Amino acid sequence: MADRITILGATGSIGQSTADVLRGHRERFSVAAVVGGRDAQALAAMAIDLRAEFAALSDSSKLPALREALAGTGIASGAGAAAVREAVDREADLVVGAISGVAGLAPTRDALKPGRKLALANKESLVSAGSAFMREAARQGTTILPMDSEHNALAQALTAGHPDDVDSLTLTASGGPFRTWTAEAMRDATPAHTAKHPTYSMGAKINVDSASLMNKGLELIEAHHLFGMSPERLEVVVHPQSIIHGLVHWRDGAVTAGMAHPDMRVPIAHCLGVDRRLATKVPRLDLAAIGGFTFEVPDSDRFPCLRLARQALAAGGALPTVLNGANEIAVEAFLAGRVGFMDIPRIVEAACDWAAGTSYAAPATVEEALALDGEARAVASRALDGAGGHPPAPERPADIRSI
Amino acid sequence: MADRITILGATGSIGQSTADVLRGHRERFSVAAVVGGRDAQALAAMAIDLRAEFAALSDSSKLPALREALAGTGIASGAGAAAVREAVDREADLVVGAISGVAGLAPTRDALKPGRKLALANKESLVSAGSAFMREAARQGTTILPMDSEHNALAQALTAGHPDDVDSLTLTASGGPFRTWTAEAMRDATPAHTAKHPTYSMGAKINVDSASLMNKGLELIEAHHLFGMSPERLEVVVHPQSIIHGLVHWRDGAVTAGMAHPDMRVPIAHCLGVDRRLATKVPRLDLAAIGGFTFEVPDSDRFPCLRLARQALAAGGALPTVLNGANEIAVEAFLAGRVGFMDIPRIVEAACDWAAGTSYAAPATVEEALALDGEARAVASRALDGAGGHPPAPERPADIRSI
Repeated sequence: MADRITILGATGSIGQSTADVLRGHRERFSVAAVVGGRDAQALAAMAIDLRAEFAALSDSSKLPALREALAGTGIASGAGAAAVREAVDREADLVVGAISGVAGLAPTRDALKPGRKLALANKESLVSAGSAFMREAARQGTTILPMDSEHNALAQALTAGHPDDVDSLTLTASGGPFRTWTAEAMRDATPAHTAKHPTYSMGAKINVDSASLMNKGLELIEAHHLFGMSPERLEVVVHPQSIIHGLVHWRDGAVTAGMAHPDMRVPIAHCLGVDRRLATKVPRLDLAAIGGFTFEVPDSDRFPCLRLARQALAAGGALPTVLNGANEIAVEAFLAGRVGFMDIPRIVEAACDWAAGTSYAAPATVEEALALDGEARAVASRALDGAGGHPPAPERPADIRSI
Repeated sequence: MADRITILGATGSIGQSTADVLRGHRERFSVAAVVGGRDAQALAAMAIDLRAEFAALSDSSKLPALREALAGTGIASGAGAAAVREAVDREADLVVGAISGVAGLAPTRDALKPGRKLALANKESLVSAGSAFMREAARQGTTILPMDSEHNALAQALTAGHPDDVDSLTLTASGGPFRTWTAEAMRDATPAHTAKHPTYSMGAKINVDSASLMNKGLELIEAHHLFGMSPERLEVVVHPQSIIHGLVHWRDGAVTAGMAHPDMRVPIAHCLGVDRRLATKVPRLDLAAIGGFTFEVPDSDRFPCLRLARQALAAGGALPTVLNGANEIAVEAFLAGRVGFMDIPRIVEAACDWAAGTSYAAPATVEEALALDGEARAVASRALDGAGGHPPAPERPADIRSI
């Protein structure tokens, strides 16, 4: 019997790569539902190609366009929160949770159902609401399959031993486009500079997070929740070739590493295959052709976002949620040309300082996380005004909140 | 209840490292028997330290020395083939099979018992008698735990998926001390040059095999038997830092790699721990301190032994047994100063050519393997006479046949 798959965030980069993997294995999978944000044409095209039973957009104003694009196909469709909920509730063996941003919090949480597998690419579920989310997953009996390349590599490597025998986990970072820049040069960095990621092609928000190393800081927080690993056992090493994605250090001195070309189809195929591997079109890894790997200690002086994320992880409570919300505002302002690149950590730090002065605990529910995220954004927005030099306006519009 | 361990090849390098790991976990292990070759003092010291119940030497002339060294300890002892057999037959949960050379073939085969685990470091069991040995292990229901660093790394990495989903396996090679030497310089290489292994400290025979890359060729043959992997799915990459020991390429494009400092205590601890990891004193792997890894395609023009081993593996039948026996003779002659370094592949190739002209099949038993090994040695000995330049006599005696 075919595995039934639902894709949340179908029209984004992860959703499209998921569809690409599924197209190679049509006999094994059927698609229960695909959920997008506002791109009716892209969602309809995918629904038709994958023979999905149901297609939903979160933006209800796009329903007529979706209906028109699906006319005569027999594919049911809907739009708005209720339609998204209907898609999430449809029977599925595995749900790909690839809505980006805090917009993904509620639908991803709703996707937690007994016996189901959730292939998780929504970072915010773990960063903003990590404890609440993992508790709910355990309560429901949902298996979480990490879909980020780093966490997926770690999940694969962790099969080599007993969880209690892990000494530490190392996540690799490409170092981003500013790895070799001076602190001075980084102060004048523009969004266009952040768009030149050395190994992955991604959206504008994640490009900035990759350039600031905040992305790696958020991944440390994710790893803490996914693998139940205490902060001092989580490390980062800069590895510009981005071939090794994660390493498990065992207490006997052995290290198991997860590697692959930097291509999201690898972790996606690993999640979709569950306990069997799916063939992909990703080229074979040829180490001699690559020639070599290099490794560096990340520089938390030039990349204070990594330090701030580590501090938030260690402090726990409200801090990770606030860090993430404030970072979204700061990155949005940077992409809009309102603040400079090095204002991002300044704004995030201001919000974290504010949170440390409150008595907020870790959000107990996704709804609490959303409320705290809103407060953090307000605090961060006020901190924007203290911004220093304003770099030139970005060459292309920000797209940070799209599904 | 403590796991009962027996160590075959106790006084060799692997045996001593095994004892070192056991010393850190006295509460978990009891030692049923230790078996050495001819070093009574070393064997007695280990037996006393590990509180072994029984100690045996294969050289029966050393029995008085062993008895004297163990006087008053209550440790039973013996020497000669019957005593070795008694040690092998004693009840044990796990036997470390670390006798080196073809001398290890019969005792290692005899160690295959139902429900027992055999941590295998005797290469010849797989190279000279691979099919027979693995068939007997399956028949007895003995679990083979590979103890070579490369195969152990692969065994660890293979836990990340289903065996049928493996695309290929890569073994790494340090490249040996002649990695950057010209073919001309290699012709004048002496045993002293081969003793400078870049990462491991080992015996004279394995130093030469490492310098010629025959060691890696033999490991390809071992991997074929251990993992049931066809020759064309087995690859070698040169990685001078010797941190990555083996890589599993999965059909989805993911690669799982086994890494560690080049320290035999890591694979030994992994085997002894079985499904739980034992703490060792091996330092934590610090990638940033190492700085980088490099990778190269091995050069089969300068290292014809690797090509010969590949050809023997592909041809199968009697070839791997003959390759190994001839190589032992050629290396012995090189260590004795009778032939030059580049005569080693010449002698091995002559023996392989002889074997290809016979109708010998793969040995069906260890005894058949020993007989064929003897024939191969005779053929190789005759081929010694065709040797070219004779390098200076070695600085230290050969120790290639010791347990």
